[in-house]
Order: sequence, then C-alpha cells, then structure tokens
Amino acid sequence: MNLIKKVVKKYNLGLDIKKGNFGIEKESLRVKENGELCITEHPKVFGDKLKHPFITVDFSESQIEMITPVQKSVESAYNFLKNIHEVVSINLKDEYLWSQSVPPILPEDSKIPVAKFENNKELEEYRQKLGEKYGRKKQLLSGIHFNFSFDDEFLKELYELSSSNLSLKDFKNEIYLKISRNYFKYGWIVIYLLGASPVVHETYLQNCIDKMKKFTEDTYYFENIVSFRNSSCGYRNKDEFYVNYESVNKYVNSLKGLIDKNVISSPKEYYSPIRLKTKNTKEILNELESNGIDYLEFRSIDLNPFSKIGIEKLDLKFLHIFILFLFLKEEEEFTEKDYFRYLKNQELLANNGNSKDFKLICCEDTETSPKDYSLMILESIEKELRDIDVFTEEDNKVLEFQRNKILSNQLYTDMVLKDVKQKGFVNFHINQSKHALIEIKKNQYTLKGFEEFELSTQIILKDAIKNGITFEILDREENFIALTKNGKTEYIKQATKTSLDSYITILIMENKVVTKKLLEKAKIYVPKGRNYNDIEKAKNDYRKYKSEIVIKPKTTNFGLGITIFKDDFLKEDYDKAIEIAFKEDNSILIENFIKGKEYRFFVVGDEVVGILHRVPANVVGDGIKNIEELVFEKNLDTLRGNRYKTPLEKIKLGEAEKMFLKAQSLYIQDIPKKDEVIYLRENSNISTGGDSIDFTDDVLNVYKDIAVTASKVVGAKICGVDMMIEDISTPNVENNYAIIELNFNPAIHIHCYPYKGKNRNLGEKILNALGFIDNI
Amino acid sequence: MNLIKKVVKKYNLGLDIKKGNFGIEKESLRVKENGELCITEHPKVFGDKLKHPFITVDFSESQIEMITPVQKSVESAYNFLKNIHEVVSINLKDEYLWSQSVPPILPEDSKIPVAKFENNKELEEYRQKLGEKYGRKKQLLSGIHFNFSFDDEFLKELYELSSSNLSLKDFKNEIYLKISRNYFKYGWIVIYLLGASPVVHETYLQNCIDKMKKFTEDTYYFENIVSFRNSSCGYRNKDEFYVNYESVNKYVNSLKGLIDKNVISSPKEYYSPIRLKTKNTKEILNELESNGIDYLEFRSIDLNPFSKIGIEKLDLKFLHIFILFLFLKEEEEFTEKDYFRYLKNQELLANNGNSKDFKLICCEDTETSPKDYSLMILESIEKELRDIDVFTEEDNKVLEFQRNKILSNQLYTDMVLKDVKQKGFVNFHINQSKHALIEIKKNQYTLKGFEEFELSTQIILKDAIKNGITFEILDREENFIALTKNGKTEYIKQATKTSLDSYITILIMENKVVTKKLLEKAKIYVPKGRNYNDIEKAKNDYRKYKSEIVIKPKTTNFGLGITIFKDDFLKEDYDKAIEIAFKEDNSILIENFIKGKEYRFFVVGDEVVGILHRVPANVVGDGIKNIEELVFEKNLDTLRGNRYKTPLEKIKLGEAEKMFLKAQSLYIQDIPKKDEVIYLRENSNISTGGDSIDFTDDVLNVYKDIAVTASKVVGAKICGVDMMIEDISTPNVENNYAIIELNFNPAIHIHCYPYKGKNRNLGEKILNALGFIDNI
Repeated sequence: MNLIKKVVKKYNLGLDIKKGNFGIEKESLRVKENGELCITEHPKVFGDKLKHPFITVDFSESQIEMITPVQKSVESAYNFLKNIHEVVSINLKDEYLWSQSVPPILPEDSKIPVAKFENNKELEEYRQKLGEKYGRKKQLLSGIHFNFSFDDEFLKELYELSSSNLSLKDFKNEIYLKISRNYFKYGWIVIYLLGASPVVHETYLQNCIDKMKKFTEDTYYFENIVSFRNSSCGYRNKDEFYVNYESVNKYVNSLKGLIDKNVISSPKEYYSPIRLKTKNTKEILNELESNGIDYLEFRSIDLNPFSKIGIEKLDLKFLHIFILFLFLKEEEEFTEKDYFRYLKNQELLANNGNSKDFKLICCEDTETSPKDYSLMILESIEKELRDIDVFTEEDNKVLEFQRNKILSNQLYTDMVLKDVKQKGFVNFHINQSKHALIEIKKNQYTLKGFEEFELSTQIILKDAIKNGITFEILDREENFIALTKNGKTEYIKQATKTSLDSYITILIMENKVVTKKLLEKAKIYVPKGRNYNDIEKAKNDYRKYKSEIVIKPKTTNFGLGITIFKDDFLKEDYDKAIEIAFKEDNSILIENFIKGKEYRFFVVGDEVVGILHRVPANVVGDGIKNIEELVFEKNLDTLRGNRYKTPLEKIKLGEAEKMFLKAQSLYIQDIPKKDEVIYLRENSNISTGGDSIDFTDDVLNVYKDIAVTASKVVGAKICGVDMMIEDISTPNVENNYAIIELNFNPAIHIHCYPYKGKNRNLGEKILNALGFIDNI
Repeated sequence: MNLIKKVVKKYNLGLDIKKGNFGIEKESLRVKENGELCITEHPKVFGDKLKHPFITVDFSESQIEMITPVQKSVESAYNFLKNIHEVVSINLKDEYLWSQSVPPILPEDSKIPVAKFENNKELEEYRQKLGEKYGRKKQLLSGIHFNFSFDDEFLKELYELSSSNLSLKDFKNEIYLKISRNYFKYGWIVIYLLGASPVVHETYLQNCIDKMKKFTEDTYYFENIVSFRNSSCGYRNKDEFYVNYESVNKYVNSLKGLIDKNVISSPKEYYSPIRLKTKNTKEILNELESNGIDYLEFRSIDLNPFSKIGIEKLDLKFLHIFILFLFLKEEEEFTEKDYFRYLKNQELLANNGNSKDFKLICCEDTETSPKDYSLMILESIEKELRDIDVFTEEDNKVLEFQRNKILSNQLYTDMVLKDVKQKGFVNFHINQSKHALIEIKKNQYTLKGFEEFELSTQIILKDAIKNGITFEILDREENFIALTKNGKTEYIKQATKTSLDSYITILIMENKVVTKKLLEKAKIYVPKGRNYNDIEKAKNDYRKYKSEIVIKPKTTNFGLGITIFKDDFLKEDYDKAIEIAFKEDNSILIENFIKGKEYRFFVVGDEVVGILHRVPANVVGDGIKNIEELVFEKNLDTLRGNRYKTPLEKIKLGEAEKMFLKAQSLYIQDIPKKDEVIYLRENSNISTGGDSIDFTDDVLNVYKDIAVTASKVVGAKICGVDMMIEDISTPNVENNYAIIELNFNPAIHIHCYPYKGKNRNLGEKILNALGFIDNI
C-alpha cells in the first residue's frame, strides 16, 4: 500500500477523499426540426453570452455551451447541468438541442456561423482562424468536459499527515500530474464506455467522409468505430506533438515551445484528453507555474443521445471513482514514448475498438481486448477503494452499470448504430431531443437538486440561471440565497424577502391594526371596525353595530374565535361572540363583513404583476364519470402533487371531503351532469386541492391602482394585497372593494403555474426589481 | 331632567360623555437664579420656534410657551405637559422656569425682549404693538389655557339620539355656546380655587403698584386678593365691551365690530375667560361661521407655584367635570347685562375674593360668599353627574380636593402669601423651580404616561418632543410609533426597527450562520468553526479541533446545550458535548473559544455612537460596610429599579447571589476591604444587577472602523455589534478581536444612562439618521 493510501486509511479520511469540486461543460448544437443546423443568432433571451456564467456559445454561434458552476458533488453538478439544460431547452423557440456529438445536417463550411462577440473581437478572430485551420465543420464536434479537484481542506490535511518534504503547492501538483499521466494510460476506457458517436452525416467534412464507409443512405462510419469525436478524424490537433507531464514546469515549457513554433496558437488549442487548469484563466501557463494546478479537465466524453441531458449520472459518478483510482493506483514509468503509445491506444480504440480482434497495449506491453481490459480496470477500481475502506453500495452500482454495458454488448456506440439504422440518423436524434423536451416540460417548476426549497425560491433560482445570475445557498432550510451579477450581490430569503423592503414596512404589514390605520388614513377602503382591549367596552358598544359584522381576535390562528353575523343579532349572541374572541387574544376586532370574492394582487414596485382568485377543490361533470373518477382524472395534472412540492395539491377524498359532499346529499359514486360543478371543500386553500385562477387581465385597472397605492402606503416594493371585490367589472370602486390584508411574503409559484391562466413570470419580475434584469 | 341628560342616561352614553379632546398651553418666563428675567434668546436647542409644535415663545422672547398636542384624556394631557416641561427644564442652561404667573424681577419696559420671528415679521409687529398698548410688563403675565371638546363620535351619537331639528353643526354650536355662557356665570370658581398670584414684584407696572399696598420689602398686593392675573390690574382688555354669546353668528359679528372700531386688532386680542375656537386657526371668525365651533379655550388659570409643572392633575380633572357640569346644568337667561355682571363678578372675586365680607351675585340676584357659593357648585357638580350615573370615585376625590382647600382655608393664594412672607418673593419662587428640577432629574429617563413602553422608545419620544417632532402611538404594546415633522413621516417599532434597514439585512442578522459567512468573506474575524447537521460528521471531525472550543446549538436559548473546552479534551467528552448540543437543535456549531472582554458597539450609519461593556453585579468595599449594606447603598441610585422600568436593575441578594458568594467563601455580613471588588454574579446581564460602563472614548478607532464595516457588510444602518477584544489599546487587530454577534434591535437606554460614563444621546442619533434633525 502506498503512503497516501496508508495515511487515508490511518486517519480515517475516507469521507474526505470523496469530497471534491466538480464542474461540467457541455456543448450542444441548435438544430431545426428537420435536423438542419440553425444558423440563427444565439437566443437574446439568454442575454450577453460573453458575461453569462452558465449559458454561452463555443466555436459557433449555433453551438450552445452550458457551464455548471463548481459543485461539491457529482450529483449536484449533474443536477445543475440538468437545470441549465432545461432552461435552455424551454427557452428555445422552434429549435432543439442536437443530442449527438457529431453534427446534424450541415450547410457548406462558409455558411456555418462562427460565434459573434461584439465586445471581444479577439475571440471572434481566434475562432475564424480555427475554422480556417481545422475546418468549421470539425469545430462543431460537441462533447462534455468534466472538471475535478479534490477538496482543499482534504489536500491540506493529507499534506500535513504525509510529512512530505515538498511544498504544499508541489505536493498538490504531484497528485494532479500523477492522475494525468495515469489518465493517458487508462483514459481509453472513458471513450470505450461513454463513446456514442459512431456515424457522421454525409454533409460532414468531405476528406473524412472519403475515408469512411457508407452506413445508411445519408451516413458514413468506420467499421467497429467507438467514438468518431475521439477518432483520427475527430477533434484533435493537426500534428502529433509531445507534452511533458513529469512536472508542471515541463508541461508549461512543452506548451510554450509549441506556441513559439506556431504549432498551436494558445494552450486552448491543445486538444488533449486531459488538461491542467487554474482558477484564474488569464495567462494560464504562468498561473500554473506560480500557483500550481487548481483542477483537471477531462475532455474525451461524447454526448449521449440516450440521456435527456447528454450524460447519465452513473457515467459521471464513474468518472469520479475512475479519477480516484488514477490517484490511488501505483504508477509506472511514463516516458515520451509512453505518451505517444497511450495516445495512439486511445485513437485506435476510438476508431476500431468494437472489432472482435482489436487489442490494446496493456500491462508490461502485453495486448488485451478492451472488453477484458475494461473488466480488469473496473475490478481494480473496486480494489483500490476497498483498500482504504471507501467502497460503497453506490460505487458498486456504478461499476455494475459499466460492467453491464460490456457484458451485454450494449455499449452506447452499439445502441446508436442500431437506432440510426432503424430510424434514420436525423429522425432518431431529433426524436431523442423532442422526447427529452416533453419530459422536461412536465415538471419545469422544479429545480433539480433544490426540490426541498419552496417552489417560489426554485422559480427565482431557475430564472437566475436563465439570466446569468450566479447564486450561493446561504442556508438551505431557510431558503436563504445570495444572487450575484456584474459584481452586485443581493440576498433573498423565501423568494420575496429582499433588500427592496424596509424592515418597518414588514412590521407594519405584520400588524393588522397598524396596517388598517395607515390604509384608512390614505382613504383606502378597509373593513370598518374597532379594536377593543376591554371586554366590557366591547359589549357596551352593541348599539353601534348593525347586521353583517365579523367579531375576531386581533391575531387569528386558523380562524379560531371568529364569529360572523350576516343578519340582525341579539345582544346575548353578540356578547357571547365577544367572549369567544377574547378567549383567543386580549385584543379583538369588530369589523363590517365584506361581500364579494377575494383576489390576491401581487404588486412589484409600481406594477400589479399578477392577480389570482382561488376556488375550493372541485370537479366539473361530464355526465359519464362519477365524482371519484373525476377527481382521479383531475389529479393526473402534473401541476398537482402532494405536500407543496408542486404548484397545486391533489384533491383528496378523505373524511372532510366526503362529509362536505354528504352535506349536499352527494356521494363519491354519484355521476354529476355535464358541466355541473361539484365542490369538495368549503375553503379555497390551494393546500386542500383548491384551484388557482389567473385574473390578471380581467380585473379593471382601477383596482390595480388601488393595490399599488396600498403597497405604497406601507412603503412596500413586494406585496401581496388581498382585496375583496364584489364586481371586478365596474369602475365605481365605492363600497365595491375592501383590502383585508397586506402580505410581505406572498407566494410566487401560484401566479407562475396557475390552474387556469398564464405564467406571469414573477421570478423575473422580482429579479428585475432587484436590478438584475433590464427589460422583461 | 333636560333632554340631553335623558338621552345620555337612556342610551348609556356615560362612558362617552367623559371622553373628549384635551389640550394644555402653558407659559413660563425664563429667569436667572437671582430671580431676574432672562433677556437671552430662546434656547437654540429647541430649534425653530415658529415650527415647533410643543415648545415656542409667547409675547416675549423670554416667555416659553409649552403646547400639548390634543390628548384623549386629562391624564394624558397632564402627562404630556409634564414631559414638555421636563424637556424644557433639563435643556435650559443656568436658567429656570419661573413658577409664578406674576413676573419675576423685571428690567425697565423697553429692555424686555419681545419675541423674535425671523421669518414672520408680522408676528413681531403684532407683539410690538401689544407692548405699546398694554405695556410689555403686563404681557408677561403668564398662565395656563385649557382646551376642551367632546368626543366627536359622542356628539354625533347624541345628535342622532336627540332627534334635534338643528343641523349637526348648529347642535354642536349650541352645546359649546351654552357651556360658554354658563362659564361666564360660574367661571369665577376657577379663579377662586386655582388662583395663585396674590402679590407682584415692585418692578412690575408702576401704575398698578401705585394702586396697591406694600406686602413685603419688594412686593405689593391688594388686600384679600385671589389672583392678580385675573384682577382689574391683570391681563385684560383696555376697555370693557360686549361680546354676544347667543349664537356663533352674533359672537363673530361682535368681534368683527370691535375690530372694525379698532378696539381690538384681532380675535387674539379678546382677553376673555373663555374663547370659541376652530381647528383651523387662520381666519378663525370665518371658520367659526362656516364650520362651527371645534373646541373651547378656558383661560383664567394661574400658574401654581406649588406644582412641579405649574398645575395639579386634580385641578385639571376638576376643570373637566366643571365643564361637564356647565354642559348639563339647566341654563338661565343670559343678556348683555348678565355678561357684564358676571364679568364684574369674576374681577371682584380676583381682586377681593378673600375678604370675609365679600359677596358674589348669585342665584336670582341674591348675594353669597364665594366659600358658600363654591361649596354649592361642588355639590351641584356631583348632582349633575349622578343624575346620569357617571359620578365616579375619582370625581369624588377631585371634589374633595377642592372642598378641602375651601374648608381648611388653604386656597393657593393663602399659601403663596404665607410663603412669600416667610421666604421672600424671589427666594420662594425660585426655590420651587429648583426643587422641581431636582425631582425631574431623578427619573428623567421615563416619559410620563408612557412608562409601559420600553425605555428605548421613551427616550426616542422624549427626544422627539425636544426636537419638535409630533408623534402618534400606532400600537402601544408593540412600541410602534409614527413620527412626523415638516410633512415627513417615519414609523418606528421598538426604537431601532425603522425604515433605515432593509428586511433582508434583519434576516441576515437573525441568522448567525449567514452573518458569519458574510463577515468571513469580508475578512472580518469571527469565531472560526463549522456548522454540522449530522451528528456522525461532527463526531468524526474530532481530530480537527484542538483546545479552546465552544460546542453549541445553532440557535441558542438561555445558553442551553453549550459546552466550552478550555483545555485539551478527550474524544469521549467531545462526543458527549456534541450529543448535548444536538438535543437543542438539529444544527450545531463548533467554534474557537474567543478570549477577551465583550463590548457592545452601537453603530448608526457610518458612526459608532456608543461602546459599552457590562460587568457582573458587584460592590466595591469601603472597609466599613458589609456586603449587604454596600448592596443597599448601591441600590439607592435612581438609575436602578425593578423589572426594566429603569436603565439599571437593583442588585438582589437572593439564592443565586448568596450561592455565588459562598463559592468564594463569602457571606453577606462580611466586610470587604477598601476598594476590594466583590462580584455577586457570574453573568454580566444588566437584568441581574450588572453595571453598564461606557467605553466610547476608550476603545481605539480601528475597532470602531471594524464595527462600522461589519454593519455595512450586512447592509445595516442601525446595528449592535458584539465584539470580543483582548486588548482595546493595541492597534494590532490580528487575533485581538472577534465579532460574535450582530443585533438588529440593540437597546438604546444602556448607552444613555450607563452606570459609569456619559449619556451618548442615541435617541437623537437615530432621529438624525431618520432625517428629522440636522446637526447633533
């Protein structure tokens, strides 16, 4: 056992070795429904591609690049990519993300749009030159890069516990260089297990097509190919050259030499399966020398057309433990000769690895089939992890997943070939994209990896991704986040608690008596009434009240202590109602009872951005199905779920609902008439299956103005105004409305995913109010 | 029984008839310690006298006028006057408020400074003319005006229930006119019972002195005088004239006629015992005609030198029930002849009412002594109130108080004469002022009538009064107030919850984990540590911690679940401490233990306005007294009280303290050595008798800068920064401090009334930050 393994084992660093920093970059081409490359501009909806941290373009204007921020686990990185992928897919108009590394139907080379960067001509020129040197078509080959580094604290601890003679920087460099060298030797397995680009369309580079065989009517391939992208005709440098991985210094000097000789123009043009990277991306070679390696970039991963987002989570997890294997595995000598030998290994595997006779150079120069060799490596991974007691059930699942591909001859490359043959190249790939989109739309309201957040916060975060706003989770349980863009940071709790509102504004809204006082002063109608702290005084005022009053405690909990008189009432009953209210609080309110329906106005700044009315849980008859069946059917809506994980809740058929039906002489087996509305609840809460109905375009502006004025009275920038309105279509506001409450933490999601009506995009409205988006 | 009484009785309006709107205006001359009138300018500390709603000047620059806002009870009006009076007294430098209606030692007439109004020359000219017409000395006679109106809702209800043929306006006018007419008849009793100005100083108007007898070396009087201010030589018009009180119209026409004939220059110059008033004070005569009477002003009240603030609460309460009596009492005819007859009655009473032979015109033109007549009226008041079932124990006390004056021959006038004779005119009156000031200073930290508010809010309100900021109580229990000045309103809850801070700033401070994250990012030292949600992870990190750590739940309640290791510790003990912490919360913190003392930095905006360090309850020995005696002595400090009503709490000698002493082998009978400090508690809370010690001028600026930076990191404008500092005198901040908490609702009062140190005037600092004060 080597020193590192000993230290890890001895000091129980098992949990820490698996920590790390993970990032994914993924390129995807935009295509039309017919499989032709889109030559339209990068969608404006994603803002400035030069500054967007998550959504930009790579070589071509049509080649969207998605970049996850650094994540603390593979799972998170995967989820984040999924979120970016969803945001991109949903916001493309009549365009799709091409699910294959190899390009779709291409126009002639010159028609392929090179990425435009208005404020950075240098980037444009660099791409122009690449296009000229390699052909634009070749630059369209798309794939996935996986970025990895160990947890910093772990490395420090390992360094201290190893009593190394090196500096910490050199110690870290040594680790990453070892992994890199091992990756040259074993990295072919990534191409073998993840390769998924076995055919190219006939419109691809002619000099490549010329070397290949026809596969279907419009496609070509090498027989036994594994990955076209990693093949001799794929994404690689013009000439072979040596880069020294013995030390950072030698690596840097190799690249500097190549740049001096004009073999490549910059480190970015070194198309290696692996790259040494630094956080600071300017002057990367100098950075490497002065500050050492920050992370490694693994680059030989094909897009997987069978995966909704181009890569499977289990494959990403495999990459992680494969890297741990490369780190733990005893290293052999690695010379210039080995460098070329192993690179050749990878190329041959990509070109021809699926042949039964194909052999790889293996251990001590023996030759082995990729199948056997892969199985050996998988075993070896398990062994290395077991040696330090960190092999888990999940790791086993990951290895089984890979083993199964090999043993069942279900490599991605095999499957793609089969589907292309059966369904056609364009048809198969475009359908994969389309199906993915349908799935995505089904629960677009959730943010993957953030499902335990309130939906309102998930919406804000999703809109942050779309608009290039980076974020940090400050406290998961509290839905406390920080958003940053262009150097400006804003903190948000529970989606609507922001810097926009002052503390006193919140305290005013929190206090119903104070809110009412201020609204009344501003001549806004509120339920008229009085506040009593003395039971006798309240009783004595009997003569002051006529019919239609509500008697309630100052602070109400679940409606306890509330009495409503809709007709005339006796002194005796009045006194009793007062006593009941005083049982709940030592301060009570007696108010006029307000007629009409209740509407939630969502105010942001000077604008009402959404109006919603809630209706109690109900079904509408079709003359055929009974109530139970109608409920079942209504519950199929993907907006409905359980426990606030969805914008609406499933209607239940429990005691409460059955009792309510019974009171109407109804049973769940009864068949309502066509268009008959059957209510299953009295209360209209969404949490008990109520419907949310968007009225934003239906309520007269005069009521919107009142809602905005009410918000301004308390100084609120974000405010949920609950207004009772008897007739939303009359401009005569007098006695037609009353504001019953102002809410400082109104839910967003109900306005974004209502039962009936439009998505009012409140997330972006709030991001706009916070100054993160200019025009929405 | 008249109609009104019947209605009040029948509809049980008893509680409502006693409601009303009450206001007090009080004039007081500023004097030097030797009894000479101050001819200095109105103190700048009270701001613009033209705009100040509570503190201004009357005729003379030396004549401070205090005006209470309209209050809902006599009690509140009295308290408010007391507060204004206290604010004025405390802020006068080497000057006193003269406690007598009759002026102190005066310079010659031309040296008496007439009030200056830089921006209103009209007001100055009016005063110049009054000075010329009446003599400036006469205009210095000071007194109290009592403003009264009934509760508006009561009047409306009374109107509706009376089925009157009049309009509501005329109905109200009738009521106030009736009271006025009755006041002419019975109002002499106010002079009789409250009159307190029987002598004048020899420096008063010569033509008056000439008519009077010498009383003491430097004073003159009319024998048997009751009130010089209300006498023939007092504050009255040059000529007698008739003003008609039959209707508002006739009243207005009378005054307009007098103005036309140049008898008086404006309604303000009608020096009547009573005036009809309107809320809108511009064009008062037109206002009266168009909108009717809003309230009545009762003007014949002398300053009472025996009262700390110039009037007794029981006398004010008497005025109130006397007015109710005037309202309820059946009215007789009231002709022009009656007007003059009753005015003469009052003048004669003022001049000569204390003579045994003096008689007043009474009922049906019979004559009665003021003593007998007063007693009859007092009885009559009781009867009228009893008739409608509203006579209370308190009313009885009020009447007894007056009866007692009469029966024991202890009218104020008698008592003043006696004291002037014994102590001398100047000496007696100046001593009354001085004693009042000493009493005021004893608990200057409370705001009378607002004692149930937190001290911090009381301080803000007191500073509001000083600075001419009007306020409204929005919710007493919540310490929720509104401040208004020059049309700008700000809302404040609990003194420091304002519009200055954003809601998210508060939420950040409320969340310790988030606060720490942000401070750390800004390179501010905080206790280093980690947050754990998983008990096993926490236990597994044992090896990461050395000595001096604190293990605590994320949210701490009264210190439950906290363990401190000051030395090396075993894994076993560490695990146990973690388990204890997890019992209190499902998230815990493990932090470095910080050395040093804790200081509270109070930050407002860019400034540290106060630094406080708290010391556990203690006494310092004198070598003579034992611990119990030392505690008793220390507790005599008026800053110490019980239950947070005072800035500091009394030190208790309960179980906890005795146990703590015992642990030091001490008992309460032990006599500490001179200067020996004996601690009675371990904790330094003010609530358990701790001392607050001001360090504002002792801590190096570099730590103040850190506190301000920390506040800015979370965006706070008002912030209590709790900082541990090992050595406050070193500029080497590294490892010398750590911020342990940021508080969004820091107490103000501890910085204003510390055990040791200066008043840091935080109330005004906050009012300044809110934009209400320019320079402090």
